[in-house]
Amino acid sequence: MVQGLDTRAISIYSPILEELSLVEDRLHDLANTSIPELEPLLDHALSHGGKRVRPALTLLAASIIPTETDNPVKMATGVELLHLATLIHDDTVDDADTRRGRASVSGRWGKEVAVLLGDYLFATSATLVCDTGNLRVVRRFAETIMELASGELIEYFNTFNPQQEMERYYDRIYRKTASLFRTTSETGAVLSGADEDQIQALSRYGYNIGMAFQVVDDLLDILGDESELGKPVGNDLKQGILTLPTILLLQRYPEDNPIPLLFKEPGNTCYLERALEMTRNSSIIPDCFTVIREYCDKAISDLESLPRAESRDSLESMATYVRERSR
Amino acid sequence: MVQGLDTRAISIYSPILEELSLVEDRLHDLANTSIPELEPLLDHALSHGGKRVRPALTLLAASIIPTETDNPVKMATGVELLHLATLIHDDTVDDADTRRGRASVSGRWGKEVAVLLGDYLFATSATLVCDTGNLRVVRRFAETIMELASGELIEYFNTFNPQQEMERYYDRIYRKTASLFRTTSETGAVLSGADEDQIQALSRYGYNIGMAFQVVDDLLDILGDESELGKPVGNDLKQGILTLPTILLLQRYPEDNPIPLLFKEPGNTCYLERALEMTRNSSIIPDCFTVIREYCDKAISDLESLPRAESRDSLESMATYVRERSR
Repeated sequence: MVQGLDTRAISIYSPILEELSLVEDRLHDLANTSIPELEPLLDHALSHGGKRVRPALTLLAASIIPTETDNPVKMATGVELLHLATLIHDDTVDDADTRRGRASVSGRWGKEVAVLLGDYLFATSATLVCDTGNLRVVRRFAETIMELASGELIEYFNTFNPQQEMERYYDRIYRKTASLFRTTSETGAVLSGADEDQIQALSRYGYNIGMAFQVVDDLLDILGDESELGKPVGNDLKQGILTLPTILLLQRYPEDNPIPLLFKEPGNTCYLERALEMTRNSSIIPDCFTVIREYCDKAISDLESLPRAESRDSLESMATYVRERSR
Repeated sequence: MVQGLDTRAISIYSPILEELSLVEDRLHDLANTSIPELEPLLDHALSHGGKRVRPALTLLAASIIPTETDNPVKMATGVELLHLATLIHDDTVDDADTRRGRASVSGRWGKEVAVLLGDYLFATSATLVCDTGNLRVVRRFAETIMELASGELIEYFNTFNPQQEMERYYDRIYRKTASLFRTTSETGAVLSGADEDQIQALSRYGYNIGMAFQVVDDLLDILGDESELGKPVGNDLKQGILTLPTILLLQRYPEDNPIPLLFKEPGNTCYLERALEMTRNSSIIPDCFTVIREYCDKAISDLESLPRAESRDSLESMATYVRERSR
């Protein structure tokens, strides 16, 4: 059974709860290796306890066209494992000693181990995807890792750069987040034998929900409270990362804007506070809500051409859920 | 054209020099991306200037059974790119600021960039292998990355541990080095349409030559001079890593052995010097030569069942070359 899901998630996942628990079992089984050095690391990394949104998307997309194979379960396990591997490398890059209140791999075993364990899990996830026997999904999976890594690199090289175009922001969050969301639902469709139009519809659905998901994250960093986020408010700006609300702040207040000052003097909490307050008290917040709503509406309309199915309703509820997360 | 090959390598590579220069072109082309942030990184990483042993093995193995496709060239490019990605992560883990007299990626751009660039190149190499359209080689490739990463992890967790069994050493160098060598020649055979016996023969050949290659490396760390190695003599021991000669030293001199003392007091050059000297002045060195010769002889006999071909002769010369490297 999947631990730690709230009732809303259980209700959305209901058409695929059985398959999702098979994913959980497979993740758990991966910790049983013949290499004693790896066991404690894998135990720690695989009992991450997230909401399993990504494998759920793969399984929901796959079950719109009913299929007899367990390929969607293999793919969903690969997708979640890839996500866990990226978290391990992200924590290494960001020097984050904790994640969700637990020690991160790099915090507990050091960066050396985190780099190598991440590599090991990336490769393990790829072998799971190979086991589907479908080269198209394997290639899409490898491209996704390229997009994830390049998104993080682009972000890194643009930290503390106050001049960033909106187009580049959207490209960056596609790479960082929406690429993997796109892959979850697209590959679910491919593996269930959906036709090309259906595959493209579910690919767009994943893209749109992934974009919405990241904009919500970026907005919560301005609005959210620390206990909910698990990290301090304004963390992005503090790390020199511009997001939708702060790029809008720069565009709308070209004069006397605290962000360029903060980027010149990182750690100056006065500038940080002023930037956060100006963003919160402007039309930027409702405008960000509009962007989120538009992505979620597009995701919902992407589903229209698909056959009616309980899992299609779940994908629609997922889009509603993402939209409401930011309220 | 491939830069920096010596006359011996050019002679061994002669049956596949044209294909090898296509590999070089493809590697070079990878630096042309649409992402401006990545270009200087890729330029630096891809102009590594090694001997291109791994892609040469793939191409030589593939050309024993002549084939019309360019799949071996794609595979060889993927194999070299994977090797370059592992070097970037290895330098990050080992805190090595230079490699072959040039700044390493982590030395020049920092560990954050090195982690992400390595990920990007791992994934890029996987897309090249996907382009062969052959799922068997893709899966073998992913398994190789698992073996590489687990080999490095096993080494890391056993640093400064003076009690290591010989069997574990051989398993570790298989993972660290021989796994990728095995993959080079095995996948070359698969992609040229060789039959299963030929594939297995070339898989064993790659394994044996890879094992020999690593034992030579381990021996040169004891015997070599710094200018040739590009790193100080005794570097493994200094980093707490046991290899064939030093495990033999521990086995043969259980009393009054300087290695456990060195591992308790790393940085004590007296213990280091004594360990190196004891190893050099014992029967351990000729015994290591015997191990190398046995692996190379096995590699040569693995070739016997294959059709006569210029490239088969080259693979034989490669084995002789590896054997002589340690003299």
